Order: sequence, then structure tokens, then C-alpha cells
Amino acid sequence: MNAEIVSIGTELLLGDIVNTNSQYLAEELSRMGINVYRIVTVGDNPARLKIALEESLSRADLVITTGGLGPTNDDLSKEVAMEVFGQEGVLHEPSAAKLRKIFNEDEERIGINIKQAMFPENSYVLTNALGTAPGVLLQKDEKRMVLLPGPPHEMKVVFGEFVKWWNENMEESTIWSRTLRLAGIGESDANHLVQDLLDNDNPTLAPYAKPYEVTFRLTGSGKTVDEIRPKVEELEAKVRERLYDYVYGADEDTLESVIVQMLKDRGWKISMAESLTGGLIASSLINVPGASEVLEQSFITYSDEAKMRILHVSPYTIENHGVVSEEVCVEMLRGLQKRTYADVCVATTGYAGPDGESVGLVYAGVLIGEDVVVNRYQFHGNRQTIRNRTTRNALATLWKMLR
Amino acid sequence: MNAEIVSIGTELLLGDIVNTNSQYLAEELSRMGINVYRIVTVGDNPARLKIALEESLSRADLVITTGGLGPTNDDLSKEVAMEVFGQEGVLHEPSAAKLRKIFNEDEERIGINIKQAMFPENSYVLTNALGTAPGVLLQKDEKRMVLLPGPPHEMKVVFGEFVKWWNENMEESTIWSRTLRLAGIGESDANHLVQDLLDNDNPTLAPYAKPYEVTFRLTGSGKTVDEIRPKVEELEAKVRERLYDYVYGADEDTLESVIVQMLKDRGWKISMAESLTGGLIASSLINVPGASEVLEQSFITYSDEAKMRILHVSPYTIENHGVVSEEVCVEMLRGLQKRTYADVCVATTGYAGPDGESVGLVYAGVLIGEDVVVNRYQFHGNRQTIRNRTTRNALATLWKMLR
Repeated sequence: MNAEIVSIGTELLLGDIVNTNSQYLAEELSRMGINVYRIVTVGDNPARLKIALEESLSRADLVITTGGLGPTNDDLSKEVAMEVFGQEGVLHEPSAAKLRKIFNEDEERIGINIKQAMFPENSYVLTNALGTAPGVLLQKDEKRMVLLPGPPHEMKVVFGEFVKWWNENMEESTIWSRTLRLAGIGESDANHLVQDLLDNDNPTLAPYAKPYEVTFRLTGSGKTVDEIRPKVEELEAKVRERLYDYVYGADEDTLESVIVQMLKDRGWKISMAESLTGGLIASSLINVPGASEVLEQSFITYSDEAKMRILHVSPYTIENHGVVSEEVCVEMLRGLQKRTYADVCVATTGYAGPDGESVGLVYAGVLIGEDVVVNRYQFHGNRQTIRNRTTRNALATLWKMLR
Repeated sequence: MNAEIVSIGTELLLGDIVNTNSQYLAEELSRMGINVYRIVTVGDNPARLKIALEESLSRADLVITTGGLGPTNDDLSKEVAMEVFGQEGVLHEPSAAKLRKIFNEDEERIGINIKQAMFPENSYVLTNALGTAPGVLLQKDEKRMVLLPGPPHEMKVVFGEFVKWWNENMEESTIWSRTLRLAGIGESDANHLVQDLLDNDNPTLAPYAKPYEVTFRLTGSGKTVDEIRPKVEELEAKVRERLYDYVYGADEDTLESVIVQMLKDRGWKISMAESLTGGLIASSLINVPGASEVLEQSFITYSDEAKMRILHVSPYTIENHGVVSEEVCVEMLRGLQKRTYADVCVATTGYAGPDGESVGLVYAGVLIGEDVVVNRYQFHGNRQTIRNRTTRNALATLWKMLR
């Protein structure tokens, strides 16, 4: 099964926004075992869109569009797609009912907008729980076109409806997958540890490197989820065994959410003394709903004076070892513990640059009770990269120690 | 002049990475007055790439590719582009010299790689200051193809070389533009204030809404920059007058960098007491190189207790007005000033959700000496959006007060 993705929107051709929809769909389709041959972006122009859709349909069995749906776009993609397939719209009763409700039974406005409730007879309307414009699956012979709305959150839920339809109606079988998320290891090292499993056929194992994170996706295909799931879980157990030190979660987990949950479970409090990261670690934990249960206060001790005043780091330690040193990091941790009585303390100190000789030299430490771990890093990249890498690595260390 | 962008890379079709190159090029080309008709993504497959390039070339005068260059890709895009144009490569002496240097005069390895230094006679080699693979501009009749490397930072510098060539060689004229950056105003309000100027022809004025920021781009075209620049600056003066309260900077400025510079100029120190934003404000300022001159320390006072202990917020104020209130925000600011003697203090308190009745209610305040400004906001969106909007708005207030 080959597919093409057609993104519709003049704002994409002007470079006003990044096309994240295409990336999402490409990833999901490849996960479903569907090959994406080409991704095309065209403007809100019916004539050019028609040519693009005809071209894509000549090469692929499945064409997925995003954008150009709904009243503000005059249902551009639906109108053109129906033209390409030579199909007429008939009234879709559930959509008409929704429309009547939206326009409060105002017959005139319903009349003007009734086109929105018209779909070809053998099409399948894909509910849009988050917006007014539903998606639609058009079919003719062995060719299919799926029209999705443009706003990313709506696109995702409507695409989800298509995936359900696909799993129920296509003889090609169902797909079920799980993503394992890793921390504290790079892509090539992780691949090395599961090298032989990467050749596995069904389920497959594939690495996906995201910024500051390595993930593995296990994907099985078969007739039913009940049939696939045990196979995926069998492979998952193997992968988890090999990568025990690094797999912090699966699917929708984030490193921050897992850490916050671990702290909650123990009724522990956490506090940070951030120099180099300047609030990034606290901020990423606070992004997890319910973080207030585990984080009461945190400190950004950016200057030497702040480290001495707030954390009681000794001026002699700073003078003798330099402010970016293991010794200072340890004193920051102990000072923070004394000050806050937090169960878990995290501290960072380093050079983010851009100037200076030791740019990228970082010490990041975690203290839990009597246990202290301080790691030394030499990062490369710009200020932002160095700070983000430090944050990810400090969270990885924290997770390992909590486990 | 019409253009198409062709991105080459199987990793893009698999959705492993987001295609930010296309967005960058689309934006830059539209800034140069070149219409982008279509953006296409294809895999690392010579046969399919050839078809895609031929198609694009049949529709557009200028085709720009990214990816598929250099030794690891076997110079895919160059080989295929030369085939499409029916051109042969001849030795490009400067590239050959670079190659000899890279391979340390090792004749065998130079021989294997010599293809990399071969370019058609009427082509123009675009220097790549950041990598081994240069870009190239191919020409035939009135059609042009520009091949750029895939890594974004390399792509940008090589594209810059093309822009230089373009400005020097194309009779179509030169483009010169300036971007004005706004804070503290939404897109539609900003548009309203310059409505009549949006119809201006040369230079043009166009709004660009980025996440949490509104910008206006002024673009002039003409024979030379010296001719265009005064015209753009004349329009700029008008726009700045209309939007005086909101234009914080131009081109590469960021709100954070402008604020840090203003504080540096006055020798002032800043400190934060962040509840809702939990380190986001401090962290964004610290991302500016040299922030250590203006920020020594900052506090994340997330719990009521932390607000009382660290900032001496009165328990009665919290009880009587609620912790998310103007009164608490003011006490946070005053407590922070007393504690740190900072010249400028910033405080935030609010409900980020996801649960609770008042999700999105935020107070953010700035104190400079005796002046205190506290704003009340009701934001919508998820936890992250609410926190990011608060950060941007607090920084906008801060900038206004500093000015």
C-alpha cells in the first residue's frame, strides 16, 4: 500500500508555519505499514490543487490531505476531491443535524451552509470531536482519499477516526504498536545493545531519535489486536531486559511525568539549585499536572554570591576548585538540602558560553538522603543546546536514582 | 518568478524529522519576491527524484533542493540534477584543492572522491563554510536549479551564498527587508493600527504571527540596496510611530535580549519570584549570552508556604484574597525586593490547570523601585500555553516599564 500526503495552505508556501502535520502523518502511516512515496504542499488554489490530487492519485492508492476543509475555506479540499473522483454530494443526516444545532434552527443560515453536510454516497464521514469540519474518506475503485482538517489537534483526532475505520475495514490487517522511551543513552549505543533485534520482522523494532531523547517503536501487524499484542509484548520484554538501565517509560510517558509520579508515590519533595540551567529543570517538572504536590520551592543561584548566600557554598571552595567543579556542585546540593529539607535535591553548574575556554563543561548532581551523584559532562553546541542537554541528563540521573 | 522546493530524504517520508528546511526556504523566497508554487518531499531514490525534478522544472523557473548532497549520499541530488539538465561535470579546481587537503594528498582516496569536485561548466559553486559538501547552482536556458545540503545550519549558509549570487546577477533587482518585532499586542489589533499601510506596494508591509509574537516585515525591491533602504526606512518610521507602544526591536532582536541589554546599560539587577511560570521567565532571560551581569538569583515559590517563607507574603493576604490575586502578587514583588535588593523584580501567580474552576487566571507583576504594575489575565489553552503566554506578557510589561 502506497500513500501520498498533500498539505493544502498558502501559509505553508509562504513559510509562515512549519508543516508539522505532514511529519505526524508520515510517522503514523509508516507505523501502520503504509509507504509514503511523496509529500506535497500546495496553496489554496482549486485548479492547482486539482492537478496535485490527480497526480498523487495516479501514483498512490491512498492520498491524505490536510487543510482546506470547513466553512472558512469553502470546503476547498472536499469540493476538489469530489470533482477528481467525479462524485456528487448527498445529504449526510448526522452532519445536517449538527449544522441545524450550530445555527440554532435558523433556516436561512442552514441553507447557506448546507453544502458542509453533503458527502458522496460511498464516502465515510470522519467525526471531528474538536471542531466543526468533519473529515471524510472518499473511495473509488481501489483508490482512496482521506480529507483531514488543517489545525493540528483537529487533524490528529480525525486521523484517529480514519485509523479506526482502517483497522475495521481493510483486509490488510491491523497494526498495534508500543513506544519505549529511553533516558541517559545515545542512539548509537542504544542501537548497539539491540542490534540483532532490529532485524525482527513482525513485530518490528525501530529506533526513533527525537531531540534529546531516544525511543524505540515496536510494531506488530496481524488480524486482531488480541493476536498482535502478546507478540509485541514478548519483544518488549526482551528490549526492556537489554535496555533495563535506560527505559523509563512507554507511549505517552515523559521523563518529567514519570519522575513526578515516582516522587508523588513516595510523598517526597524535590528542590533545585540551578546555575547553568537557570530554571529549566524546575520549569520542566512544573509542566507536569500535579507538580505542586512534589515541588514547593526552587532556587536559581546564578552568581557566585547567590551560591554563597542562598546555599552557603564556601568561598574557599569556589576559589580553590572554580565555580564549575564537582566540589561546588556537592556543596550546592548539601546547602539546598539544609535549607529546604527536600527529600531530593538537584544542582547544576557549568559554562554555557558562547565565550570562554571551557564552554560546555558542566557538573550536574542529584542528592537523595545520603546518596550523592555528580556527573561531569563536556557538551557541544550553542547556549540553548548545552542547557537543554544538561536538563535532560540531570533528569535521567534523577530517574535512575529514584528507581 | 516562480519557484518550487524539493526536499530529498527518506527520513522525511518516514516522519522521523520535521521539514523545517522547507519552511525556512519558503519564507526567505517569499521575502525575495519569489512565489513558491509547490513544496515536494521525495525519498533518496534516483529514479523518483528525477521524475520529481523534471515535474518541478516544467512548472517553475527556479527549483531549490535540500538534501542528497555530499559523500554519504553519493551526491544524489547533483548526479540526478545534471542528468535532468543533460550536463557533464568538469573539474572545479577550488573544490579539488579542498578535497586534496581533506584527504591529505592521498591520491587513491582523492581519486575515489573526485566526483565531488566535478560540476557542470556554466554552474556556480556555492561555498559551504560549515561542511564538506558545497551547494551548486545549475543553469540551462531560463531554468535554474539550486542544490543545498540537508543539515539546516549548512543549508542556511549555502542558501546565503545563493542569495548573494542572486542579488549580484539577476536583473530582476535586489531585495532588502527589515522585520519589526512586537510585544504586548495581538495580531488583529496590530493589523488594525497599520491597516492602510498593508496595501503599500514597494516596500510592502506584511504581518507574520509567530508563536507568542507578532512581527511585521517591510520588504523593498529595486536595483541596489542603497536605493531601497531609504524607502524601507521611511515606511519603518511610519510603522514605528503607529505601533510605538509595541515595537521592541528589529531583525535578530529577541524580547529577552533587548531586556537584558537595557538592564546592562543601566547596571541594574533583576530577580524573579515565579509561581505559575516556575522558572520559565528566569530561564528565558538566562538564555541570552551575558545574562550573568544582570541576574544573580531567582526564586521559584510554588507553594503557599514558599511564598510566605521566602518572600514573607502574609498568610492573611493569602487567606483573604486567595493565592492567585493582585494582593499576593504585590506582596511577592515587595518581599523579593526586600530580600534581594534587585532593581527590578518580577512575580507571577496563577492557575495553570488542567483541573479547577479558575484555570488560566493569572496575575503577573513587575516592580521597579517604587513603581509597581500588576496585570490580570484570563488565558485559555493547556498548561504549557498558559505558562508560555504568562512569560511573554510579563516580559512585555517589563520591557514597557524599562523603556
